[in-house]
Amino acid sequence: MERVPVLKIGDILLVSIQIDMEDQVALQLQEDLAERIVVTGCHGVIIDISALDIVDSFVGRTLATIASISRVLDAETVVVGMRPAVAITLVELGLSLPGIRTALNVELGMDLLARSRAEEYDDEQDDESDPVVVNES
Amino acid sequence: MERVPVLKIGDILLVSIQIDMEDQVALQLQEDLAERIVVTGCHGVIIDISALDIVDSFVGRTLATIASISRVLDAETVVVGMRPAVAITLVELGLSLPGIRTALNVELGMDLLARSRAEEYDDEQDDESDPVVVNES
Repeated sequence: MERVPVLKIGDILLVSIQIDMEDQVALQLQEDLAERIVVTGCHGVIIDISALDIVDSFVGRTLATIASISRVLDAETVVVGMRPAVAITLVELGLSLPGIRTALNVELGMDLLARSRAEEYDDEQDDESDPVVVNES
Repeated sequence: MERVPVLKIGDILLVSIQIDMEDQVALQLQEDLAERIVVTGCHGVIIDISALDIVDSFVGRTLATIASISRVLDAETVVVGMRPAVAITLVELGLSLPGIRTALNVELGMDLLARSRAEEYDDEQDDESDPVVVNES
């Protein structure tokens, strides 16, 4: 069976989708990715779809599912490399990929993830510097 | 026609081979990669073959050609992600991929390219600090 490889680059997992997203391939990718996030502790997932001529509703749903799975495992997903024609068709089909962040290419996707991670870290720092007092009364 | 995407990450071009390397696909990849090296000025190429179950003599030759093209364009090629079974079959077939550097995964491939680049840079620095005197006589 064909399988989409998941590549680890620093704190990011990179998936380049090139083959047809049939049911089994999509399920296997979701499983592989979830496992790699847990094993590696990566906080970002980049899915490159620059090889895809067509993104139909099944692929759109698969991307959304991957993003949701990653989110509950504390990783953020960015879809990169979408062709202009794909974007036009997606919107014409009424699929605007809600809940999925996008960037033009892998590098911009990495920047986005790094910025987003830095902001999250800042927020955590702020929370810590402002301790919540419980059982005060 | 199917096409293998070439992803730019920093100073490196990453190619993840997942589809069958037919003649046209291989030629297109060689062309795309050569163009991207020239346009981006990248000095390293990483080819991930972790999705391949089989590497036959045609794929082996394609990898060697890509490495040679990259070399004349001042970029170094590292093949990463080879499965153990592929390595065994390659050697049994008498194909030991001469002239191709390998690493276990993308991250180690990046390290290898960075180290190799740093050494080259050091050599250049040494050359500069040791000027050649011409027309002395």
